[in-house]
Amino acid sequence: MHRTPDRPSPDERWRIRRSADDLDRLGETESIFALSNGWLGWRGTLDEGWPYGMPGTYLNGLHERRKLNYPEEGYAFPQLSDTVISPPNATLIRLWVGDEPLDLRTGTLRSHEQVLDLRGGVVERCTEWISPAGHGVRVRSTRLVSLPRRRVAAVDWTVEPLDGPVELRICADLLANERIPERADDPRAASVISEPLIAERHHAEGVDGVLVHHTEHSGQRVAVAVAHSPSTPEHFATDLDATPDRIRLSLTGTLATGEQVRLTKFAAYEWAVVDESSPEELAAEVTAEADAARQEGFAGLLAAQRAALDAAWHTADVLLDGDAELQRATRFALFHLIQAGRSDGDRTIPAKGLTGNGYDGHVLWDTEGYVLPVLTYVAPAVARSALAWRHAHLPQALDRAAELRLAGASFPWRTIGGEECSGYWPASTAGLHVNADIADAVLRYVTATGDQEFLAGPGLDLLVQTARLWHRFGHFTDDGGFHIFGVTGPDEYAALVNDNLFTNLMARRNLNGAADAVQRYPQAAARLDVDPTEVAGWLAAAAAMTLPYDPKREVHQQAAGFTDQPEWDFANTSDDEYPLLLHFPYLELYRHQVVKQADLVLAMLRCPNEFTEAEKAANFAYYEARTVRDSSLSAGPQAVLAAELGHLDLAYDLFAESVMQDLADLGDKTGDGLHLAALAGAWLALVQGFGGMRDDGELLSFDPRLPDRIDRLAFSLCWHGQRLLVTLTADEARYELPDADPGTAVELLHHGERLRITAGAPLTRPMPPVPDWGPAPQSKGGSPS
Amino acid sequence: MHRTPDRPSPDERWRIRRSADDLDRLGETESIFALSNGWLGWRGTLDEGWPYGMPGTYLNGLHERRKLNYPEEGYAFPQLSDTVISPPNATLIRLWVGDEPLDLRTGTLRSHEQVLDLRGGVVERCTEWISPAGHGVRVRSTRLVSLPRRRVAAVDWTVEPLDGPVELRICADLLANERIPERADDPRAASVISEPLIAERHHAEGVDGVLVHHTEHSGQRVAVAVAHSPSTPEHFATDLDATPDRIRLSLTGTLATGEQVRLTKFAAYEWAVVDESSPEELAAEVTAEADAARQEGFAGLLAAQRAALDAAWHTADVLLDGDAELQRATRFALFHLIQAGRSDGDRTIPAKGLTGNGYDGHVLWDTEGYVLPVLTYVAPAVARSALAWRHAHLPQALDRAAELRLAGASFPWRTIGGEECSGYWPASTAGLHVNADIADAVLRYVTATGDQEFLAGPGLDLLVQTARLWHRFGHFTDDGGFHIFGVTGPDEYAALVNDNLFTNLMARRNLNGAADAVQRYPQAAARLDVDPTEVAGWLAAAAAMTLPYDPKREVHQQAAGFTDQPEWDFANTSDDEYPLLLHFPYLELYRHQVVKQADLVLAMLRCPNEFTEAEKAANFAYYEARTVRDSSLSAGPQAVLAAELGHLDLAYDLFAESVMQDLADLGDKTGDGLHLAALAGAWLALVQGFGGMRDDGELLSFDPRLPDRIDRLAFSLCWHGQRLLVTLTADEARYELPDADPGTAVELLHHGERLRITAGAPLTRPMPPVPDWGPAPQSKGGSPS
Repeated sequence: MHRTPDRPSPDERWRIRRSADDLDRLGETESIFALSNGWLGWRGTLDEGWPYGMPGTYLNGLHERRKLNYPEEGYAFPQLSDTVISPPNATLIRLWVGDEPLDLRTGTLRSHEQVLDLRGGVVERCTEWISPAGHGVRVRSTRLVSLPRRRVAAVDWTVEPLDGPVELRICADLLANERIPERADDPRAASVISEPLIAERHHAEGVDGVLVHHTEHSGQRVAVAVAHSPSTPEHFATDLDATPDRIRLSLTGTLATGEQVRLTKFAAYEWAVVDESSPEELAAEVTAEADAARQEGFAGLLAAQRAALDAAWHTADVLLDGDAELQRATRFALFHLIQAGRSDGDRTIPAKGLTGNGYDGHVLWDTEGYVLPVLTYVAPAVARSALAWRHAHLPQALDRAAELRLAGASFPWRTIGGEECSGYWPASTAGLHVNADIADAVLRYVTATGDQEFLAGPGLDLLVQTARLWHRFGHFTDDGGFHIFGVTGPDEYAALVNDNLFTNLMARRNLNGAADAVQRYPQAAARLDVDPTEVAGWLAAAAAMTLPYDPKREVHQQAAGFTDQPEWDFANTSDDEYPLLLHFPYLELYRHQVVKQADLVLAMLRCPNEFTEAEKAANFAYYEARTVRDSSLSAGPQAVLAAELGHLDLAYDLFAESVMQDLADLGDKTGDGLHLAALAGAWLALVQGFGGMRDDGELLSFDPRLPDRIDRLAFSLCWHGQRLLVTLTADEARYELPDADPGTAVELLHHGERLRITAGAPLTRPMPPVPDWGPAPQSKGGSPS
Repeated sequence: MHRTPDRPSPDERWRIRRSADDLDRLGETESIFALSNGWLGWRGTLDEGWPYGMPGTYLNGLHERRKLNYPEEGYAFPQLSDTVISPPNATLIRLWVGDEPLDLRTGTLRSHEQVLDLRGGVVERCTEWISPAGHGVRVRSTRLVSLPRRRVAAVDWTVEPLDGPVELRICADLLANERIPERADDPRAASVISEPLIAERHHAEGVDGVLVHHTEHSGQRVAVAVAHSPSTPEHFATDLDATPDRIRLSLTGTLATGEQVRLTKFAAYEWAVVDESSPEELAAEVTAEADAARQEGFAGLLAAQRAALDAAWHTADVLLDGDAELQRATRFALFHLIQAGRSDGDRTIPAKGLTGNGYDGHVLWDTEGYVLPVLTYVAPAVARSALAWRHAHLPQALDRAAELRLAGASFPWRTIGGEECSGYWPASTAGLHVNADIADAVLRYVTATGDQEFLAGPGLDLLVQTARLWHRFGHFTDDGGFHIFGVTGPDEYAALVNDNLFTNLMARRNLNGAADAVQRYPQAAARLDVDPTEVAGWLAAAAAMTLPYDPKREVHQQAAGFTDQPEWDFANTSDDEYPLLLHFPYLELYRHQVVKQADLVLAMLRCPNEFTEAEKAANFAYYEARTVRDSSLSAGPQAVLAAELGHLDLAYDLFAESVMQDLADLGDKTGDGLHLAALAGAWLALVQGFGGMRDDGELLSFDPRLPDRIDRLAFSLCWHGQRLLVTLTADEARYELPDADPGTAVELLHHGERLRITAGAPLTRPMPPVPDWGPAPQSKGGSPS
């Protein structure tokens, strides 16, 4: 499944490289080399701006709104959709050698490499190019998007002659409304708005400039300033030009052998609501910020970047001895998860982070369902920030529930600004489980951190309003069972089903969690008019929740009646008919026993105590044989259950699929941006799969089991402010608190044994035998995307 | 429910009138006064063209295609949709009195009346109007759309001074690309294409002219010719002007008291596929046809129209003594059903006939589900023609089934040209029952007519290819039952359900009917490669068809699990929240026990022998309490079952609702065109409800029962070429063959007694007691539309 090139050296396990051989897949490369600080993102385009897969700079929350047109309208169909747009592009440093632009498609490419340094948080680039007229240059650059300075990104760029004097023109551009390519006719692609930015102000002075624009429909204003530090031979001419959509610093002259031009470009960005800002103030703000970054200097930014990443890796790094390539891929995954979030402000993480415009830059349940279950343990403050973002958008969710004639809150399936933006309701508005996923993320965050202030505040609001939704939406039948009908679970090859097991279990957790929180903070709950009758109603619904089961086949049903559906004709489905959604209508997919992605399997991961091991084994075997993994959300949870059931080779293959999703572009969609949920799924596979970590109780529990291909697996988890380090080998599991003050302790379960880990006193336990539930089930081959 | 104005005199039972009081609802009036011959339709606009609700001329099959845009694409979502467009408007005779246009919104309207003569097949209009400057005129006109001459419509128009000389300008226009109003933001409205016609040729000579246009996307060419017979005082000036989009005959002069201008305008239309026609030939064809009509003269056209209608009414008329208003409304309904179809060529009947552009002028299952069950008995040749149209579009249905990865034929949910045009697949593509409805219409037509030639030919093709669809789509489960999962039945407040009872019963009939036909015509079947194994498969599936039943509530389920769904909160649904689809999301509607329209009740009408009377009574009571009749398709079938169960007052109210659907504009949508299925439903209520006619056996059967409000009900049915006249009074039922040759006989069942009716020997039987299944269930109030 994953490619196995040369094994990297230890240092190479922190580097991702692409060379001239990779220029035919620029979009993929741009996503992989995307840099972000959770608020500002630069795709890994070439400095000179051409050729490109898809240029992109993204600011968390910056978007335009567009009209949705339906062939047939329906009540409460969203009329507008948010679409991510790029602020002016500050990455551009175009170069002309003689009359010829540096363009890797022309001339002779002597060498070319881009390197992502996962510890330094930079992308380095080195290119040696001979122009068609025979003039050679070496261009190098280092880019960063500053983790400490939210608004700042910078590039340090040099050019020098290779073999003799060269006449150069260097144009460092800040360019608004750059044309970007239209996307393919694929339901998962982004929509493109041409020229979304309306110029308001442009100003240039000395070697610096600033552009201010606003959007037409979303009511946002965005300002970008560039501050340059050019270093050229004296005879070079410098010119600065400003138009409404472009600031251009031009450096012109001839370089002799041994000379070079170095240009460091500091860019600062900010956006604000139009009504709450002025162009002048916003321009002044970013101008000052760009200048401050220049004052700090590129070396200073580099050092601060490294320091910030050192701190992040201290908790986040996962050691995976035995497979150097997947070690590197694991760090790649964690790097992108780290840089996707921020702990300042109310900020969430879109499905693609800030690495591309796939899914229109929308936030989906990927965040709470996949990304936060990782970040809660490796960057809990970021998880809090993302949940606070949901809380900040609770008003829209309350309005949406009212529009849907429901109660409580109904969070959007996909959004940027907080309003529902989905255009196909059976797969979105009906996917009510997003509400339970948010509640689950709240409960996980509070359990892992003990952050009672959050629970009593935003957490309570989120839990109560989502519980109200479930209580209103579900119903009791004569047999006393509580049911949730007509919803769509995680599996997108089913829709509008009754009693989706995942949804029901997560709704039960939501209802119980809300009741617990209200009972813990009754005064806080009073602000929401919660009374004991309401709580009793939640508890009754949770207790009576229906969990569909097929006694004949002795498996749970993904939804009521699932196992009565016709089987998919896998024998007559050819390899090129995956992903199925591009070759079969929903009419066929929905009514068959064919599963796009982990659904019941995800339920067994999230709610492990709702199933016996025998049930898990039977369910896993049944659903594994019917799951095609046409979604990148699938392999990680499947890997976890495979590991739990002792199918360790299968688990490892699934882990590899998840972690290589983007590095190997398995779904041919990486060019649209990275699949953060799949990257998170890789961590889940390692920590919850091979580490056997479960977090649905009061204590963390571990049932570790390592596949042969892993010699040593070590990972850290933040738990109530402590860093718990878990190190697994074939023989033993070691638990320790390496950073703890004396007297600190963490309790956990190791294969059911309660352990108390104290500072300075690691505990070691033998690895138990691997469970044997028979041969691993045959997986169905899909092409995740 | 229906308005009760003055009771009409006997002659008035053949007339529909609208006066100046009705000018605030012109759209409705234009639909009610629409004239059609099944190929050409004129809406009942004012001759002068303004004010209007929505002008419209329609030619059966003439359409443009437009792109469908989806917020989120999906495999096999139709990319294009047909939309009905108007050919050039030939109805216009504009009038200026002095400098002021005749416009009923200005000046003083002394009197105004439009009359639809149901026996004459004409619309007469008489208006006395004083211009703002004080000049009075009387304008009269008579319009017809010729039943014998498919291409021809004509208007005979006069103007005369009321009180003194008037200076007049009369402009008889033929106008292409007339601007028509955009429609409301309602999922049921039509889409409007502005200026769909591209001019190819215009020619004027003498007092006649012709326009030829073609469409941009649908590849159609349309020609319209006008031939005028003006009669003016000698001093009047005549002028003819032609531009690419307009032919205008102008008559100018001053009329003295006692003088008049008479203008008779003959219009002829034709359309053809662009590649199979030339502008010159098509222009010549319609020019000759308009001239031929002028040769015949308006009086000749009138006489032929009356003769054609006399023949139609001979079979179609229904006598309803005791309620003069509903007698008239019944004839109104039958008039529009008669003029909606033709027996020449392969022609179907759109949901609105040729009376408006609602539903984009599409053909839906209304045709086979409602209209043909009437026309099969009152105009069997028209039913054959409509079924032949389906057969002519079998290739597209085969292609669509292949695209959907199914087998056999999948007929479109909505179309003009034969391709699927629906933009919301859960309510359309998933509504596979349209295929069984077509098969059912074939079987009914063959049973009623004995047309074995049709059965062995197009009928066999239709039956076999639809049977193949069901056999491929359904599946057997372990318990031996055959199931049809993931489809949508008639009720549009449910979607993607399992084992919809109506669908399953109709699919069973389809499978059995195909098997019967194959067994009867094995040689014909050989051309379709049908072998005995395949037929055995159909029969096995039909025999094992699952019919969901709730043993606890002792009712059938509309679909599996329906009775476990939550109940709708009718108590908290206000009157202004109907129709529910405009106030609640599908998310709420689909999962509740709320029914838009007869579904299980329709199953009990179509397949009466699948249910015991006790089951029908229980089912009817249960579903009547949950059916809101937000669809105009509902009341008719509900009336039939209410009558069968002895709820005669309820049945009468439902009949009244169905028959008054458009005359009272109950759903506020009549302006978009008439609801032909509701008008057909009125006939079903009378003949299948009070007449108790059932047609699912080899013989027609009758279980008549009359409500108090009907003194006498008489209707005719064509049966194997004979006209069977049934006359019902409170005391007796009389069966006779009034037109039959000696020796002719028809067998039928009267309350289970087999009767043989022979020519000249009517049989009379007493009316049996009305069944008593307890009090009538409480109906839910909807607002049908």
